[in-house]
Amino acid sequence: MKAVRIYGKEDIRVEDVPISDPKPDQIQIKVKYCGICGSDLHAYTDGFGLPMHKHPITGREVPITLGHEFSGEVVKLGSEITDFQIGDAVAIEPLIACGHCANCRAGNYNLCLNMHAEDGGNFLGYSDDGGMAEYVNAQASFAYKLPKGMNYELGALTEPTAVAYEAIKKSGLIAGQTVAVMGAGPIGLLTALLAKTMNASQVYISDLSEERLAKAQELGLTTLNPSQVDVNDEIRKDLPNGVDITFECAGAQPTLNTALQITRRGGIVQIVAIFGKPVTIDLSAATMQGYNINTVLAYNNSFPLVMGMINNHQDLFKKLITNKLGFDQAIEGIKSLATDKSQVKIMISPEL
Amino acid sequence: MKAVRIYGKEDIRVEDVPISDPKPDQIQIKVKYCGICGSDLHAYTDGFGLPMHKHPITGREVPITLGHEFSGEVVKLGSEITDFQIGDAVAIEPLIACGHCANCRAGNYNLCLNMHAEDGGNFLGYSDDGGMAEYVNAQASFAYKLPKGMNYELGALTEPTAVAYEAIKKSGLIAGQTVAVMGAGPIGLLTALLAKTMNASQVYISDLSEERLAKAQELGLTTLNPSQVDVNDEIRKDLPNGVDITFECAGAQPTLNTALQITRRGGIVQIVAIFGKPVTIDLSAATMQGYNINTVLAYNNSFPLVMGMINNHQDLFKKLITNKLGFDQAIEGIKSLATDKSQVKIMISPEL
Ligand SMILES: [Zn+2]
Ligand SMILES: [Zn+2]
Repeated sequence: MKAVRIYGKEDIRVEDVPISDPKPDQIQIKVKYCGICGSDLHAYTDGFGLPMHKHPITGREVPITLGHEFSGEVVKLGSEITDFQIGDAVAIEPLIACGHCANCRAGNYNLCLNMHAEDGGNFLGYSDDGGMAEYVNAQASFAYKLPKGMNYELGALTEPTAVAYEAIKKSGLIAGQTVAVMGAGPIGLLTALLAKTMNASQVYISDLSEERLAKAQELGLTTLNPSQVDVNDEIRKDLPNGVDITFECAGAQPTLNTALQITRRGGIVQIVAIFGKPVTIDLSAATMQGYNINTVLAYNNSFPLVMGMINNHQDLFKKLITNKLGFDQAIEGIKSLATDKSQVKIMISPEL
Repeated sequence: MKAVRIYGKEDIRVEDVPISDPKPDQIQIKVKYCGICGSDLHAYTDGFGLPMHKHPITGREVPITLGHEFSGEVVKLGSEITDFQIGDAVAIEPLIACGHCANCRAGNYNLCLNMHAEDGGNFLGYSDDGGMAEYVNAQASFAYKLPKGMNYELGALTEPTAVAYEAIKKSGLIAGQTVAVMGAGPIGLLTALLAKTMNASQVYISDLSEERLAKAQELGLTTLNPSQVDVNDEIRKDLPNGVDITFECAGAQPTLNTALQITRRGGIVQIVAIFGKPVTIDLSAATMQGYNINTVLAYNNSFPLVMGMINNHQDLFKKLITNKLGFDQAIEGIKSLATDKSQVKIMISPEL
């Protein structure tokens, strides 16, 4: 079968590889769509998250099939599988977790104590073969049937939406609260959009790119461009006390500074982005505001909720899928994320 | 009456001042004990928190009577007071809050939106006259009767213990969890001690001062001196995954780094200290651990709980009162905090 395989930094190849039969607890999926993520670009440009040596849990090293945002049709069942049938439409939560450590037992399998940050974590598409292939085997306990009426494209949007949802979950957002989102990349847009569908009172989103803000406007969000306005001044015209929760989806010192400025006293600064560099924080000023600065990694127990939420607002979420490419254009598609700000989510499909 | 008054940086005077009658919603207290806090030293050395110009809420400016950790006997009642009697023993929650802003209405009056950080906040002892005087008038709604059997010295310990308690409350600590405390100054010791009385499984406390660690040992805490051992290595010998919650009560870059190292994946780093300088944080590493970095300012709705907890463990809390001085020694006592690491809590009393 065809697969998009990464061998290391700046080395991705589309090639033919065999697919094994699923293990007893796995299902085999014929991939329908697989989204390209910023971290795929990151893996390409600097080898982010790739097991260059034998991964301690999966035993794998590069080459690895990329892709962690995918949906597909069940085509084979492992011998122990009873709750899926051939033909089921599913999306896959691409986590690998031990299932028996203290965090796994507590439901926080995204923070599995046997999942090693230095190996890029345990994700399909990094630590084991992912979904940019014609077929993939996945643990059935991480597979979720698509709700009735939800297509494969939207199914493949579940994973990045789950990243946004988990940030919202960790922030404790409740309906009616006010929200600001730093950065209108895919995760920023998804976070803002989800907050809006959850009936946050106000959802501001800021970015330097007018192309990204145009997309945000299309989604009904209130946009702010820090090159044109003082974001804090603008927000405080409406909300003198600041917003309840700020989601930092840009991952840079200036946007973090703005986040720490626009959040109300006693509010939450929710870190969502992976910051490229250490930052400077005035914790004394943060203390005077009583802030919590939360981080979040991946998601747990959220896929069914997220699918339901996407399904309720299909028309809005569809707007985030900006391109669809075949395998032969996958490498080009990954590279384009570095420069083309008009793209939100590019979907790869073996059928194109 | 005699009062310990601060005029500004390095200018504290013990002098005679009049005391007015209590306002309708106030009670007048004959002060029994008033603790000296590190922030009193801070006010002395660099004017921290002092209203050098008319305070926007209280209308006061220096000179101000110091003291925000005090207990006393009710000697006069304002005309509206019905729930206190002459002779009641009370401790005072030294906050000034508007009572009607969004945060006050939500119970978070410590984060009152009309309490200005740039004016040092609204605390008795900074923004209005505090308890280092023979008498003080205080709003009755911020006065709490001492539990039966609790003396005035322990009553005066309620305020710093409430600082520690609020950090514990915000961290979400539950009995049986494991805790590390960075810094064995008064707040660090109180935080560790409270956690221990709440039946945390393990309570580690680290400090460079052997004098402070000796006091921690007297309290039954597990001590670590980073000049002698690798704190992370030592903790992970017992707890391979790290501690559930780390309380940063030292307020410096190296101790924050340690806090971010020893806390388990998915754990809480609770900032308690006021950091003197901005710090550098690798938020990407924090994200891989899924940390929440919480701050906390003062306390709300906690005095009755804290009094009950102190009262249950009088013998332990008494060990924290290391000296008692009269008014004439107050200035000397404040200055001694800068150098004398054997002191935990020095109490000032008009009766000594
Ligand atoms: Zn695990
Ligand atoms: Zn208020």
